Amino acid sequence: MAIRVGIVGVSGYGGGEVLRLCATHPSFEVVFVAGEGSAGQKLIDRFPGIGIRQTSSVETLSSLVIQKWNPAELPDLDVLFASLPSGESKEALARVPAKTKIVDIGGDHRFADGWTYGLADVWPEQIRNQSRIANPGCYPSASIPALAPLLAEGLIEPAGIIIDAKSGVSGAGRGGGNTLGFAEVNEDVSAYGLLKHAHVPEMNKALSRIAGKDVALTFTPHLIPMTRGILATCYARGKARTADCLAAARKFYANRPFVRVVDPAPHTKWATATNLVFVSYAADPERGLVIALGAIDNLGKGAAGQAIQNANLITGQPETAGLEGTPLWP
Amino acid sequence: MAIRVGIVGVSGYGGGEVLRLCATHPSFEVVFVAGEGSAGQKLIDRFPGIGIRQTSSVETLSSLVIQKWNPAELPDLDVLFASLPSGESKEALARVPAKTKIVDIGGDHRFADGWTYGLADVWPEQIRNQSRIANPGCYPSASIPALAPLLAEGLIEPAGIIIDAKSGVSGAGRGGGNTLGFAEVNEDVSAYGLLKHAHVPEMNKALSRIAGKDVALTFTPHLIPMTRGILATCYARGKARTADCLAAARKFYANRPFVRVVDPAPHTKWATATNLVFVSYAADPERGLVIALGAIDNLGKGAAGQAIQNANLITGQPETAGLEGTPLWP
Amino acid sequence: MAIRVGIVGVSGYGGGEVLRLCATHPSFEVVFVAGEGSAGQKLIDRFPGIGIRQTSSVETLSSLVIQKWNPAELPDLDVLFASLPSGESKEALARVPAKTKIVDIGGDHRFADGWTYGLADVWPEQIRNQSRIANPGCYPSASIPALAPLLAEGLIEPAGIIIDAKSGVSGAGRGGGNTLGFAEVNEDVSAYGLLKHAHVPEMNKALSRIAGKDVALTFTPHLIPMTRGILATCYARGKARTADCLAAARKFYANRPFVRVVDPAPHTKWATATNLVFVSYAADPERGLVIALGAIDNLGKGAAGQAIQNANLITGQPETAGLEGTPLWP
Amino acid sequence: MAIRVGIVGVSGYGGGEVLRLCATHPSFEVVFVAGEGSAGQKLIDRFPGIGIRQTSSVETLSSLVIQKWNPAELPDLDVLFASLPSGESKEALARVPAKTKIVDIGGDHRFADGWTYGLADVWPEQIRNQSRIANPGCYPSASIPALAPLLAEGLIEPAGIIIDAKSGVSGAGRGGGNTLGFAEVNEDVSAYGLLKHAHVPEMNKALSRIAGKDVALTFTPHLIPMTRGILATCYARGKARTADCLAAARKFYANRPFVRVVDPAPHTKWATATNLVFVSYAADPERGLVIALGAIDNLGKGAAGQAIQNANLITGQPETAGLEGTPLWP
Repeated sequence: MAIRVGIVGVSGYGGGEVLRLCATHPSFEVVFVAGEGSAGQKLIDRFPGIGIRQTSSVETLSSLVIQKWNPAELPDLDVLFASLPSGESKEALARVPAKTKIVDIGGDHRFADGWTYGLADVWPEQIRNQSRIANPGCYPSASIPALAPLLAEGLIEPAGIIIDAKSGVSGAGRGGGNTLGFAEVNEDVSAYGLLKHAHVPEMNKALSRIAGKDVALTFTPHLIPMTRGILATCYARGKARTADCLAAARKFYANRPFVRVVDPAPHTKWATATNLVFVSYAADPERGLVIALGAIDNLGKGAAGQAIQNANLITGQPETAGLEGTPLWP
Repeated sequence: MAIRVGIVGVSGYGGGEVLRLCATHPSFEVVFVAGEGSAGQKLIDRFPGIGIRQTSSVETLSSLVIQKWNPAELPDLDVLFASLPSGESKEALARVPAKTKIVDIGGDHRFADGWTYGLADVWPEQIRNQSRIANPGCYPSASIPALAPLLAEGLIEPAGIIIDAKSGVSGAGRGGGNTLGFAEVNEDVSAYGLLKHAHVPEMNKALSRIAGKDVALTFTPHLIPMTRGILATCYARGKARTADCLAAARKFYANRPFVRVVDPAPHTKWATATNLVFVSYAADPERGLVIALGAIDNLGKGAAGQAIQNANLITGQPETAGLEGTPLWP
Repeated sequence: MAIRVGIVGVSGYGGGEVLRLCATHPSFEVVFVAGEGSAGQKLIDRFPGIGIRQTSSVETLSSLVIQKWNPAELPDLDVLFASLPSGESKEALARVPAKTKIVDIGGDHRFADGWTYGLADVWPEQIRNQSRIANPGCYPSASIPALAPLLAEGLIEPAGIIIDAKSGVSGAGRGGGNTLGFAEVNEDVSAYGLLKHAHVPEMNKALSRIAGKDVALTFTPHLIPMTRGILATCYARGKARTADCLAAARKFYANRPFVRVVDPAPHTKWATATNLVFVSYAADPERGLVIALGAIDNLGKGAAGQAIQNANLITGQPETAGLEGTPLWP
Repeated sequence: MAIRVGIVGVSGYGGGEVLRLCATHPSFEVVFVAGEGSAGQKLIDRFPGIGIRQTSSVETLSSLVIQKWNPAELPDLDVLFASLPSGESKEALARVPAKTKIVDIGGDHRFADGWTYGLADVWPEQIRNQSRIANPGCYPSASIPALAPLLAEGLIEPAGIIIDAKSGVSGAGRGGGNTLGFAEVNEDVSAYGLLKHAHVPEMNKALSRIAGKDVALTFTPHLIPMTRGILATCYARGKARTADCLAAARKFYANRPFVRVVDPAPHTKWATATNLVFVSYAADPERGLVIALGAIDNLGKGAAGQAIQNANLITGQPETAGLEGTPLWP
């Protein structure tokens, strides 16, 4: 029987990617969509390529009308995906009935009471069958998987970790104004939010749990001229050799379907349009330095892909259901 | 029972896209791959994100070794996809056994004896159950679907048609050298092959067949700084109104799953990573001018997508099998 | 003695490019700048790389404060460049004193009474010493120079001309919102304003004057994923040979410093950051078709470059003053 | 009197940028150009936009014929710029007569006997009037200026410095093959040369000289999808506050025309087409961490711009001669 799915924030990049993935998911059926700017439009008017799958539900999908969000008028849903601007989730989701499970792609519920932090590749068993999932942020989704095996195995010190991350522009969402306009982003790179990015506490908490010790990291995000992709280049102190790091990661992620341990360094393009995360390592024991790399699609593993993975886990579907697509290349 | 598939030219852009689509196709199983530069490598070394689907065949897929092409040593195949450089298909495919059906993505067999021109959205019934399919070129795949309904209905004159096409860079294949290097393609647009592009005879033949009259068109391709996508802007003489053109196209493509008639003009991004073609029209009866637009992904409808569609038709699969993915956005 | 220059609309792309060119102009000294969103800021805060030239005026330039536009409080200026949103120039410039010459980059005064259409490469003598110049639009600046020699020499018919133009994104100015955001423009091409673009009457008027006959053309603009550049691909009826067209253009533009007649087709990158326009031709006399190409930087010849050229003409400076920079490559 | 200039390697990106800058330099006259692939062509055929400056020498410039390199047949030159592939400079330049001064943009002579390392913004007095200049590499040109004031003032420790650099593609030169093709670089970012990049010894040597102590740094270069620009994000240990770092840099670079100390973080676009370097700082004294940023155009400050600056210094020209152009924006 189909799992009835709703999406709020469908006209943003994260919500749109959830829709894209649900459209070919073998057991999810999208029966409700809501969006702020696009309310009243049919889905097909917003997503002109939607609805190729030749089933009765497809007809439904293309002609589904985008609603204004009103939790009092929700249809009967098994899962609701929320992809709302920062600060809007708390109130918007408070009155969703308990029987409707929620995956919140936004940041408001990360490490909040009653919510499980959905770090799906690292602790799937903690997620399975839960009802309220806070999906990890895009930068944490690239960084944590690279560092987790090293911290879990004690191969690096929990202090002094530096994450230098490079992100495509879609991570900033729609509505960025001139500074995210093509003419200004093209042929440019810049760092932003130096020493104070919102994703730092989230990464510290998740990594501290994995390490069993307090982690306090430094994080520098950069905006680069591409639409999708994040590469996190992480620097840590430790005496491990490259081979130790690779071995630790291979063991840590044994049988995890979406993590690929590679050598040499990955390209973000290897992950485009998928829920994959590529991790790699290079270490210099003499200098006591370990470099850990994580590469993802920020809208895949960094948002909608991991959200679907989490939804699979909480609804008892195979973890890879709807996520089997191969990366776009070139 | 799985349909056994081979791909020759797998390390090029067209062949790689066939592989991507086969990797999630419900009934195609890739059992043989060949490539020139990559022979001896495992598929996973060339395509690091391949093999997410959790089946026995996936293991096969990731660890499949790329072969040097030798038609004398082909395994038993139901379908062979060929994506070879111009001029190499004729000889390479001559000794493929008759029981192995072929879809040739290259240009050598278009309108050759014994081969069917696989214009899948326009004449699917001529393709069904054939054995040798010449897949249309990328520019024709964007242009012909836009013009076909107008010529079939006599809404435009067969003489004096101009096609001004804009293509992403992947259409030129790998190995383009400096002139296709990022630094020189980025922030540049240029026309090339003025009045003498190789795709002109192919378009004239296909459109003449549709029109029932000789078509002799002018074609100007342009290279623009993007990886995927072709937009064909076609100018023709005729007294039709915009609404007549849209109605003719809607009728012509009724129930065809991959053609979308839209108004206003489409974006190529609407088709990214899919086999869709978007067509649209704007006409000025006073001036006697009709503009027809066709937008595709050059590696989707323009190459691998249409190749899979043709393979579905000749092997009795549902036409949309393996092609249900929704466009990537943004 | 320095020519005292003002710029209104300095924080837009056109106004910013005028500033860039004035900053190294041998005789222009910018003494006044105004802008809407940026009023109150110092120029250096808006343009962090300004002011390299080591002269007393440079200090002035970097620390110049951007003003709110108020024609009643204008300082004494020899030339005012205006780069304002469509519809705002008429009123904004009405009270500028007669002794201050104006070059209006916006569209409001093109072919208006009392204003000279500043088609600098074609009719410089009509511009010299005038006081009120309406600078040509970006699309006309790419298209007219390509067609002018053919119409002047009667090599093409004035009826039935089609201009298919491809433009970078900066032509739309700042403030385009989501649809000009990097994530949506990147990897996309689309046509817009089919059969009704605002630049059509301007091109018809200018070309009719050159032809001595009524020209009524069809114009299709396209947005492509690059910041700067326009390529106009023009189709016309005529029996000329390619060599006739090239010869006509070489004669028409003899000794004109910014027009380059080339064969084969030009790249827009050849013009980046300059006031150059490249024109080229390909003809098929049997078919009666002539293709004319024009390639420019839309902020150079298409806006600020031609504005400086016009300002040179009306102030008696050498025509190339401040415009001698060589194109950026790659 | 004009300074007679030659360029060997003129058809590469670095050599081409030297040509661009010389073309408007007030005292340099290019009288000789050599190149491997382009020998026999006229400069105008390779650089279609060259030669706008209306002087007698311009005619010379456009029609100058590119020579095959033969040091035995050099004309009388005051300065020779060399931009040759790695490993080719040593032999190629050995027989250039002593009276011809050389600026070698390639890496072969950096810290070689008889050659001065041309770190023009940091030690101009050591360069003035020298005869053999090894121009700094592109990555060092972004990184060293950011770190130099901190090391000179003892604000950071010389051990444990990490440089995470992001470069546009032109830094790799022409001829990069498929992996630098547009289709593969676009929408991708990757790290390369982990723990072993060729620029490390150069940076260690230059920074050790500035620090007066041994510096041994870690360097991770990344390729990002843009043509020009390098951003170096440097991490160092130290107790300084942000304001201390900014003040140290302002003092260190007082009256240096091409270094701009900014707060907040710079964009590489601010430097496009210029010889500028922007540096900025953010520090967390509690954590003992200092972030230093350097942003340049890799073909400007990172190659040809600094080469011209060095040539000005060794020939007694004003340091900013020919380098007064304002950044391209957008």
